[in-house]
Amino acid sequence: MRVAVDLLGGDHAPREIVLGVAEALRSGAFVAEELLLVGPSSSTEALLREEGIETLPEILHTESVIAGHEKPVEALRAKPDASISLCVGAVRNGAADGLVAFGNTGAAVAASTMGLGLLPGIRRPGIAVSMLGRNGRFLLLDAGANPSPKPQHLFHYAVMGRAYAQNVLGKENPRIGLLNIGGEASKGNEVMKQAYTKLEESTLPFVGNVEGNQLFSGAADVFVADGFVGNMVLKVVEGFAEYLVGVAGEAGDDSDLRNLLRKLLGASDFSEVGGALLLGLNGAVVIGHGRSRANAVLPALRAARAEIEAEVNRHIVEDLATANPGPDEVAPTA
Amino acid sequence: MRVAVDLLGGDHAPREIVLGVAEALRSGAFVAEELLLVGPSSSTEALLREEGIETLPEILHTESVIAGHEKPVEALRAKPDASISLCVGAVRNGAADGLVAFGNTGAAVAASTMGLGLLPGIRRPGIAVSMLGRNGRFLLLDAGANPSPKPQHLFHYAVMGRAYAQNVLGKENPRIGLLNIGGEASKGNEVMKQAYTKLEESTLPFVGNVEGNQLFSGAADVFVADGFVGNMVLKVVEGFAEYLVGVAGEAGDDSDLRNLLRKLLGASDFSEVGGALLLGLNGAVVIGHGRSRANAVLPALRAARAEIEAEVNRHIVEDLATANPGPDEVAPTA
Repeated sequence: MRVAVDLLGGDHAPREIVLGVAEALRSGAFVAEELLLVGPSSSTEALLREEGIETLPEILHTESVIAGHEKPVEALRAKPDASISLCVGAVRNGAADGLVAFGNTGAAVAASTMGLGLLPGIRRPGIAVSMLGRNGRFLLLDAGANPSPKPQHLFHYAVMGRAYAQNVLGKENPRIGLLNIGGEASKGNEVMKQAYTKLEESTLPFVGNVEGNQLFSGAADVFVADGFVGNMVLKVVEGFAEYLVGVAGEAGDDSDLRNLLRKLLGASDFSEVGGALLLGLNGAVVIGHGRSRANAVLPALRAARAEIEAEVNRHIVEDLATANPGPDEVAPTA
Repeated sequence: MRVAVDLLGGDHAPREIVLGVAEALRSGAFVAEELLLVGPSSSTEALLREEGIETLPEILHTESVIAGHEKPVEALRAKPDASISLCVGAVRNGAADGLVAFGNTGAAVAASTMGLGLLPGIRRPGIAVSMLGRNGRFLLLDAGANPSPKPQHLFHYAVMGRAYAQNVLGKENPRIGLLNIGGEASKGNEVMKQAYTKLEESTLPFVGNVEGNQLFSGAADVFVADGFVGNMVLKVVEGFAEYLVGVAGEAGDDSDLRNLLRKLLGASDFSEVGGALLLGLNGAVVIGHGRSRANAVLPALRAARAEIEAEVNRHIVEDLATANPGPDEVAPTA
């Protein structure tokens, strides 16, 4: 098991990412052989040694990076040695089983999708985030890889999410809900109605449509969403949490209060669980927040390892074969 | 100025709604002539007298109600004397200037749209909710009236929202943002891109796309959203707030903490401001939560009165004429 780490992406790279790697090694959570670092070799080596690390992981040297504001596809073409591309290349050629990257999500999604390829039967990758609610951890996907999905893509997200929830989150029989704006089968737009039918007819443990206010109440373990809606939901929760922490901080000098609120909110902060997972590809891909600091690195590494060791991709492919998804391709709509 | 009140809709009707009306009268916030009650006349009269109200508002008698689970259009057809229909009729024939209803949102939207008709130039009504963020109150619309809007509908929502924010929320020059999943003009689906162009080319104070995490940070005063997304956002915030209050309650016996959290969250609870506003129709329509209790009635009545007295509808029609919306109808898309 080996994870490639993009040292160059994100607002505080490479220093904070390297410090995070140092902590992962120093704590014994990871050993050097489990990591393949991708970034500037001599400065990384120096910083790791300064941090007391004796056995260094292999470092794949590059100084080329795709910044947060760059257009993914154009930038990937213009920079063949970009750190994210080298990470993807390492997974493709078997030097690593998965990768962890911070920063430009679009570039990470594009590079991974083009470089790793889709799992057999899957048509689109999906971004999954895990958050904490009434019933423990739950999974929301797609959180933005695919803003205009077809019903079949949503069906595939259900299969992917279930495999992850079962094998990594430890849910025995994860319940799948379709994130929609009403409970009845007839609710939502055409894509949602067709996705509902597909899920209803499948062998998956589908609990039906779930509404936004049921996300944190434990109504399902896997919430399947259109990527536009899933991304919006994720960001609204993030922004609302930040707002509350800010208001609580200003409301008084009661720092216990603010700390508890932070703790409550931190438990629902997707950066705490190491970032978002890009599921559906040949390899494990974990994408952390662009503003990640050193303390976000170890959770991201753990997330990648957990996905690899649980063989989530093998489960997705096997489950897809038995989930009885109906016709392989939806009828062309307009 | 007179507001029709549906006494029969909602989980705790009619008793809690009548108690709320009693409080509105007893406190002096409203006088009897300003209200037209629609519901069971004798029991309402008895309860109001029991509550110490001497001068009673006029009561339009009916015992017919559309329950929360009924399909709006069918139910409206089957029950011509439904309380919501009588409220709408009162606004249409001039006996009232607006209405307040709790409960079946779909039925209230359908009855109002069919019975009152759209303002000149407007093609679809929109549900607006006001919430509290970093920059004071802001408006989110559409929150669910129109789950598959055309770009022009979104443009109209911007005009409506601005008129409301300016004339009721007291924002001098309300900034309009388009709730999207990325900042650049090229982000989101086709409808969002076209709506962006329309807003950009208009005379409206458009600040561009805003993301979900900017909702509470004061990035705009009016957030224009697709009804599917707007509804989802509203419900996710509601559910997340409830979840936090619940967790805080269980976290310890520190009731000060829970109370402050409740207060923080209450300020973002749309029921506190009296419900959602259905904008774009000939008349003011305020729709409260189905689970509203007596204390939700006065805020809802105030919201209706504020909208009527500020002549929001006159402003919408005038603003629409000068906002320079581009072609009156979008090119047919597939």
